[in-house]
Amino acid sequence: MDQDAMYMQLALQMAKATAGQTSPNPCVGAVVVKGGQVLGMGAHLQAGDAHAEVHALQMAGSESRDATIYVTLEPCSHYGKTPPCADAIVKAGVKRAVISALDPNPQVSGLGVERLRDAGIEVEIGIGMQQADQLNEMFYHWVVTKTPYVTMKAAMSLDGKIATSTGESKWITSPEAREDAHHYRHTHDGIVVGVNTVIQDQPSLTTRLPNGGRNPVRIVLDTHLRTPIETPLIQHPDAPTWIITGSHVEQNKINLFHTYDHVQIIPLRASTITINKVLSLLGEKGITSLFVEGGAQINDAFLQAGCVNQVIQYIAPKLIGGKKAKTPIEGKGFQHLCDAFHLQIAELSQIGSDIKIVAKRGGKLDVHRHC
Amino acid sequence: MDQDAMYMQLALQMAKATAGQTSPNPCVGAVVVKGGQVLGMGAHLQAGDAHAEVHALQMAGSESRDATIYVTLEPCSHYGKTPPCADAIVKAGVKRAVISALDPNPQVSGLGVERLRDAGIEVEIGIGMQQADQLNEMFYHWVVTKTPYVTMKAAMSLDGKIATSTGESKWITSPEAREDAHHYRHTHDGIVVGVNTVIQDQPSLTTRLPNGGRNPVRIVLDTHLRTPIETPLIQHPDAPTWIITGSHVEQNKINLFHTYDHVQIIPLRASTITINKVLSLLGEKGITSLFVEGGAQINDAFLQAGCVNQVIQYIAPKLIGGKKAKTPIEGKGFQHLCDAFHLQIAELSQIGSDIKIVAKRGGKLDVHRHC
Repeated sequence: MDQDAMYMQLALQMAKATAGQTSPNPCVGAVVVKGGQVLGMGAHLQAGDAHAEVHALQMAGSESRDATIYVTLEPCSHYGKTPPCADAIVKAGVKRAVISALDPNPQVSGLGVERLRDAGIEVEIGIGMQQADQLNEMFYHWVVTKTPYVTMKAAMSLDGKIATSTGESKWITSPEAREDAHHYRHTHDGIVVGVNTVIQDQPSLTTRLPNGGRNPVRIVLDTHLRTPIETPLIQHPDAPTWIITGSHVEQNKINLFHTYDHVQIIPLRASTITINKVLSLLGEKGITSLFVEGGAQINDAFLQAGCVNQVIQYIAPKLIGGKKAKTPIEGKGFQHLCDAFHLQIAELSQIGSDIKIVAKRGGKLDVHRHC
Repeated sequence: MDQDAMYMQLALQMAKATAGQTSPNPCVGAVVVKGGQVLGMGAHLQAGDAHAEVHALQMAGSESRDATIYVTLEPCSHYGKTPPCADAIVKAGVKRAVISALDPNPQVSGLGVERLRDAGIEVEIGIGMQQADQLNEMFYHWVVTKTPYVTMKAAMSLDGKIATSTGESKWITSPEAREDAHHYRHTHDGIVVGVNTVIQDQPSLTTRLPNGGRNPVRIVLDTHLRTPIETPLIQHPDAPTWIITGSHVEQNKINLFHTYDHVQIIPLRASTITINKVLSLLGEKGITSLFVEGGAQINDAFLQAGCVNQVIQYIAPKLIGGKKAKTPIEGKGFQHLCDAFHLQIAELSQIGSDIKIVAKRGGKLDVHRHC
């Protein structure tokens, strides 16, 4: 591996470590190097805080002059919550900038690089691009489509069952697989279930990892506002709970939830809930990524809407059988195989005693097309 | 790798190449070596033909004197269709015998080794044993239990469906996965389906591999003898077809099949078919391994009987959905998760655009316990 690739790997590793904590901003890492010595390192830690480049330049101090900066994403050129990083790089007297990927937002993409080049800085683009794209694929999707990236998760037996015919589902998979699933709660902005799951399973939908983690916003699709007040999502204010309902729900029913500060009831402008409307709404509210934990009907709604970007499937090597046993996606389904929703295998691994499959929708967003 | 291991690897490779053609005998390979030179090589090719040791000794000729012979299974000490190999080894003047695994049959296990040692031959046991056991695990199972080793196969979508809600199932998986499944037909003595599958799918159940392969005996579970005369299993004599029925089927109904030489109607002694009875019958008839290709009801019958040794599951990364879409195992199933049938992952791979999972029953037969 040459030195450029090596330093960019370091920047990518730092960026990766912040996955789940920067939303609605992307994960970014930066390294400042001069004469073969690392002089500054930094990553963007959370929205509102300094960007990666600023941290790295601060650490390097006056040594930034004539140095090379490695950044996993194009430095911004506009004022947001913080001043433009491109200006900071110019001001620090950096000589060369190595950048993994351009900004995915078509309105600003390339402008940061232009600013650097105008100031006489040598710019190289593309080293580690694939990893950088991968790292921020959910963010990119949101920037480009204005809707959250959707990850559907299920845990099933080797014969495709998520419960026995009597409804027993705790637990089909191993503790290791269940802990792995909690990492996805940490890295997604929102988690969504149907009201039937709330009523039947009384879930808390929090992130339970050995060393803690960020709780996603808990979103319930509940046309008629049937969510019981006494359910953990309402009683425990661990994370915001948003209940999306139809337009017809009566105000005094909604008022019952007013004493719970973490709970928002959000009526749509239509009497029925459609997935596309939900995703537009959530995208507007800054939910860049959504973790779908079912049940089987909600999963079918996402499937029918064509809104699944990724499936995480845990499979336990056991057989349950039963015509009446539930499967991960029910509802109407597709009648013809030619209509089935196609994905590509992105990851295949063993986790505890189980199998984990990550499958992604083909045809990734080509956000770098224009550069 | 030391020389012993290296020569045993060669013997194991030769044995492996004959998988599917030696039944009801095991796959065995043998190598004769002297002064670091390979002088004889052989494998058992099919039941009734010479054993591996005899082929290898013949190739070596008089050079067998004072040589070392490597054999993947204990040489036989009894007269079967051919004279005892242990005697042939003694007679050839071999000095040392390296053997992977003892004979699994408790009645003769160790006797071959005893014969060699009595004749002053130095015997070493255990090199490559795990591979040798693996290679003949179906044969071992049959020798010890007198019933065939049962492999259940299914092809499903990522959400556990083997067909759409309208019954479309051709094809869920890729051509590569379907070809892979035909290797299992080649290596199993029998293939079993229920009569409903015969009626609905009109399958031929033959082995269709690019360079040919052995057809398994085609077995239909058909309590009331509803198999249509015009179905390919009856009309095309590519392989024997055995139809297992209840005791009550009338003789004139049976007689209709008499003109088809490759077809046997086999009434059980009870009015209903149970999997345990079927397996005992097939074991007696020399079927050492059985490939179960469903449908979902037959699969449940094998599951309920606890008679599944191995599951081969192909999974296509697509989503079909649908409450009414079929899953690999239906019927009654298990009501409680604690009763689910547990397996262990033995193989996990990508094949074409699909995933292949091989899961085996835990607690392998400890056939070498006594040595």
